[in-house]
Amino acid sequence: MLDTLKTIHSPEDVKKLNTDELGELAQDIRSFLIQSLSQTGGHLASNLGVVELTIALHYVFESPKDKLIWDVGHQAYVHKLLTGRRKGFRTLRQLDGMSGFPKRVESPHDVFETGHSSTSISAALGMAKARDLKGEDYKVVAVIGDGALTGGMAFEALNNAGRGNTNLIVVLNDNEMSISKNVGGIGKYLNKLRSSQDYLKAKEDVEDVLHKVPLVGEHMVSTIKRTKESVKSFVMQNTLFEQLGFTYIGPVDGQKLPELIDLFENAKAMKGPLLIHVKTKKGKGYLAAERKPSYYHGVGPFCIATGEGASKTGDYTFSEAFGEAMVDLAHQEEKLVGITAAMPEGTGLLPFAKVHPKRFFDVGIAEQHAVTFAAGLATEGYKPVVAVYSSFLQRAYDQILHDVCLQNLPVIFAVDRAGLVGEDGPTHHGLYDMAFLSSMPNMTILAPKAPGEMAAAMKYALNVKGPVAIRYPRGGNCIEQVYFNDYTSTGFKTLKAGNNMAILAVGRMVEVALQVKELLSMQGVELAVIEAPCIQPLPKEEIVALAEDYDYLFTLEDGIIQGGFGEKVFATLALSSKAVKGHCFAHESGLVPHGKVSALFEREKLDAKGISERILNDLK
Amino acid sequence: MLDTLKTIHSPEDVKKLNTDELGELAQDIRSFLIQSLSQTGGHLASNLGVVELTIALHYVFESPKDKLIWDVGHQAYVHKLLTGRRKGFRTLRQLDGMSGFPKRVESPHDVFETGHSSTSISAALGMAKARDLKGEDYKVVAVIGDGALTGGMAFEALNNAGRGNTNLIVVLNDNEMSISKNVGGIGKYLNKLRSSQDYLKAKEDVEDVLHKVPLVGEHMVSTIKRTKESVKSFVMQNTLFEQLGFTYIGPVDGQKLPELIDLFENAKAMKGPLLIHVKTKKGKGYLAAERKPSYYHGVGPFCIATGEGASKTGDYTFSEAFGEAMVDLAHQEEKLVGITAAMPEGTGLLPFAKVHPKRFFDVGIAEQHAVTFAAGLATEGYKPVVAVYSSFLQRAYDQILHDVCLQNLPVIFAVDRAGLVGEDGPTHHGLYDMAFLSSMPNMTILAPKAPGEMAAAMKYALNVKGPVAIRYPRGGNCIEQVYFNDYTSTGFKTLKAGNNMAILAVGRMVEVALQVKELLSMQGVELAVIEAPCIQPLPKEEIVALAEDYDYLFTLEDGIIQGGFGEKVFATLALSSKAVKGHCFAHESGLVPHGKVSALFEREKLDAKGISERILNDLK
Repeated sequence: MLDTLKTIHSPEDVKKLNTDELGELAQDIRSFLIQSLSQTGGHLASNLGVVELTIALHYVFESPKDKLIWDVGHQAYVHKLLTGRRKGFRTLRQLDGMSGFPKRVESPHDVFETGHSSTSISAALGMAKARDLKGEDYKVVAVIGDGALTGGMAFEALNNAGRGNTNLIVVLNDNEMSISKNVGGIGKYLNKLRSSQDYLKAKEDVEDVLHKVPLVGEHMVSTIKRTKESVKSFVMQNTLFEQLGFTYIGPVDGQKLPELIDLFENAKAMKGPLLIHVKTKKGKGYLAAERKPSYYHGVGPFCIATGEGASKTGDYTFSEAFGEAMVDLAHQEEKLVGITAAMPEGTGLLPFAKVHPKRFFDVGIAEQHAVTFAAGLATEGYKPVVAVYSSFLQRAYDQILHDVCLQNLPVIFAVDRAGLVGEDGPTHHGLYDMAFLSSMPNMTILAPKAPGEMAAAMKYALNVKGPVAIRYPRGGNCIEQVYFNDYTSTGFKTLKAGNNMAILAVGRMVEVALQVKELLSMQGVELAVIEAPCIQPLPKEEIVALAEDYDYLFTLEDGIIQGGFGEKVFATLALSSKAVKGHCFAHESGLVPHGKVSALFEREKLDAKGISERILNDLK
Repeated sequence: MLDTLKTIHSPEDVKKLNTDELGELAQDIRSFLIQSLSQTGGHLASNLGVVELTIALHYVFESPKDKLIWDVGHQAYVHKLLTGRRKGFRTLRQLDGMSGFPKRVESPHDVFETGHSSTSISAALGMAKARDLKGEDYKVVAVIGDGALTGGMAFEALNNAGRGNTNLIVVLNDNEMSISKNVGGIGKYLNKLRSSQDYLKAKEDVEDVLHKVPLVGEHMVSTIKRTKESVKSFVMQNTLFEQLGFTYIGPVDGQKLPELIDLFENAKAMKGPLLIHVKTKKGKGYLAAERKPSYYHGVGPFCIATGEGASKTGDYTFSEAFGEAMVDLAHQEEKLVGITAAMPEGTGLLPFAKVHPKRFFDVGIAEQHAVTFAAGLATEGYKPVVAVYSSFLQRAYDQILHDVCLQNLPVIFAVDRAGLVGEDGPTHHGLYDMAFLSSMPNMTILAPKAPGEMAAAMKYALNVKGPVAIRYPRGGNCIEQVYFNDYTSTGFKTLKAGNNMAILAVGRMVEVALQVKELLSMQGVELAVIEAPCIQPLPKEEIVALAEDYDYLFTLEDGIIQGGFGEKVFATLALSSKAVKGHCFAHESGLVPHGKVSALFEREKLDAKGISERILNDLK
């Protein structure tokens, strides 16, 4: 079992294998990934697609002297396997275990950390320019998916690299997908390239003529042949990538190891910026994943034989509640439209897309465009809802500020995965949205605390004459319905009375605050639990009133402390010359690692136990 | 004088003119712009280039029913002239006067507000989709420069629009420039398209063959002709824009009105996404500006005959000091490299580029790429300095956070135009950098208060083992050298002693704080003036000590209040249970209008007089 894989402790070991053994290695890796991820969960489909591609890269190039940069990075599992991290898979994505993304501290072979899409060519070009300045001679290879190519930043890098003569290899890992089916003109174009219809059509045009001329001699035949070649070369030299200044090679079958190895060997010798177009198949080798690659994009533990369990089911989630609210509200509000940047499943928009296909827009991995596109719709009287994960919304900071807030347009941001997301780690935690959105003019920010409040929050948002962000976490929660907010008003709400101390909590953390109250009650300490359903605009009078009503005030939020909710509450108190005792419970820095959400909160002492202890400490 | 222009009060009046009169109108507009801007200053070169283009658009389309969206927007002066705003030019860019950019409140013809590059196609597509959903029939036209096309967001929009059949017209205003010479693969490619070498070369390939075949009859001649056309059409159908799904028309001479009008008339009838490639010349019609278009991009008042005064001279600026420091430090630190996103002049990097051309990188209007490119260089031991305006840095929020801060890479951000910039208004004020950078992990933020401190701040930054942002304003200032900071330490510095009150000021506002002290002294109030040369990390003990030393504490910064420096200072005090009296002087919202910087500070009561009065009020 896995005999070949077990011989691999570094890329040097890959280079020792013959063709047959390389094929066995590919088989072993697939078996290992399916087996291992069926236990731990992780990114399955994308990694199954790049087995041969990754083997070929490590066979041909000299990592870490040569630099391999993995765009997005969730497809770097095979790379991790080939660089001595097989045992790490036991702890994949667990707290203190191996990351699901490239990490510089984990291995010298991880030369750049990724997580968000479309950064690899920029980083690679930086490394290539550094090499040239140093007068060294290593190779730099960026591996980027066709989905990531729709992110504008990738184009900025192609544009910059294309002008010069810097040696740089971009491997386009074309599986026709982002997480879902890839969309947009570039996807359509790559399809055309894959079937090379353009080339064929042009060749036919010329052949048509040539066949009609009278029979010609030997000399003429060779001229005609040359012309055909010239037309062919003209077509290939006019791919989009060539037009930007790259040499284009492809498309090649990314599941054929010997071909890939040959190709990369040739590529090593070539000069200037080079784009190699490799066709792969997401989920390759595991039938269930091949059939439903987006379902098997990121999986929990599953049964290999049936595929069952791959999609996480369980709690009723905020995303589901959002999706249902969209469908319902769209019947009442005909101007409501939904926009996603390549995340129709994850954001919960799929049901809306099915019921209202004309009012649903998947714009590709393109958050900047998504936001300004929404602004355009809003100027014409529409009520666009941009459904996006908190950490991806960071990509559109400037567009939210300029194109939506400065013009005070009624765009709704459904900010999913706000707060800690767990196993995906620091590049995916949504810690910053409250901090950055709350400094923008005209912005209202709501933070429902339970999926059952999503519809009410959405309804409220639709009546605001300006931009609204609704932030909510991954998953669901177990808060009792009696505490639900109907968003008929947005002031602070006291959920539980207390004596001389209160905790003011936001969103999902209200549930934790209620747990803290119970723990403290057992110690004879009576804490009032107050929620802030709306964190912008802040009700300053209510904040000041809290300082009058309570001696101790605590704030609790699932976001970064700097510029966050609690900091604003305490600054408000100071500026009103109110002295209180208290503490701001929030994430102290953005360097929260990967792991189960519950384990992360515990580590940060932001779970009920940790907070209770810290409060009791403050009281000493 | 200007007889034809004076007849124009709305686009309806343009449509009444015959060909000769349209030509006269173009002449009049050029004369008017040169005359008017020589008095007020403004964006000259770009507007001179689009005179005919704008006339043709208003002649053919029905604004405001048809939507015209101006990318960046500083080239919309001709549009403003043709839509009834001639008299507004007397107050151009002045406080309460006409904006230098499209403003929805100014005119129904300004359908979308712009300022930053590359947003127009996204907004236009949003409006076009809204039109289709409503079942209406107006046209939507985005006018975008070739420089703006290097911003990735424009590509995201092309990709999204290219896939579908939505009627949308993109006019590519190709003047071979951003503010400076346009760079990158796309610029090179547009050059090729302009000269249509590809087409010619392909045609020659085929003609070569056809000439070599024996003489043929009438039928054959027409076949050959058809083939030539087929090759031509093949070439034109394989432009980069066609590959993304657009119909491409061009290139056409953008200074020839009748041709443009014909073209736009035809375009109106065409279906699907359409890109019209128009060649224009920045500065057209004013020789000085044609010769030096980047010099005449944004001008102050100037002498028409000599062109003198166009470039603002005067104070020794922070940008100049930065540029000099770069040149000097680069001699000592061989790993120092400089990066700009299409702003070599404005950022002051030009001298560095001349002395160290290999270590200078202009990556085009591509802030996202610029930052991650810098991160790539930093992983290989380089010390990249990204010189960028504060408001443009917003474009790279996610890249700063993920690619630099999470990896703790030593990239230096030279954040120019931090704080109010004046006449360019809300899209260009740099109010947010302190708020958003201070929530990012590992980030150090310095705020030198005078150009004379720039070299010391840069030296300090080079020794920090992680990212550093140095923020400084447009222009210079007059602070006395005796107050200069040598950045041997970064704690608070007391510049002037006081009695029971202190003002803690940041960067350029230290000068204002010193003026406030003088004003208050005259009233017998002795205010201590303290500066914070480093605003992240914040010295919490020093903040708490201030509350012990003073009864009143004021903070003063040129940035947004929410999430800014003062808010953090006061939150720190509250969390230390310190009650002080005081006030946080900063911008209350991001909606600061355009106008002279001094006038804006006065309006906001953030000048010395306004602050003194507010402090005296607090004391009552």
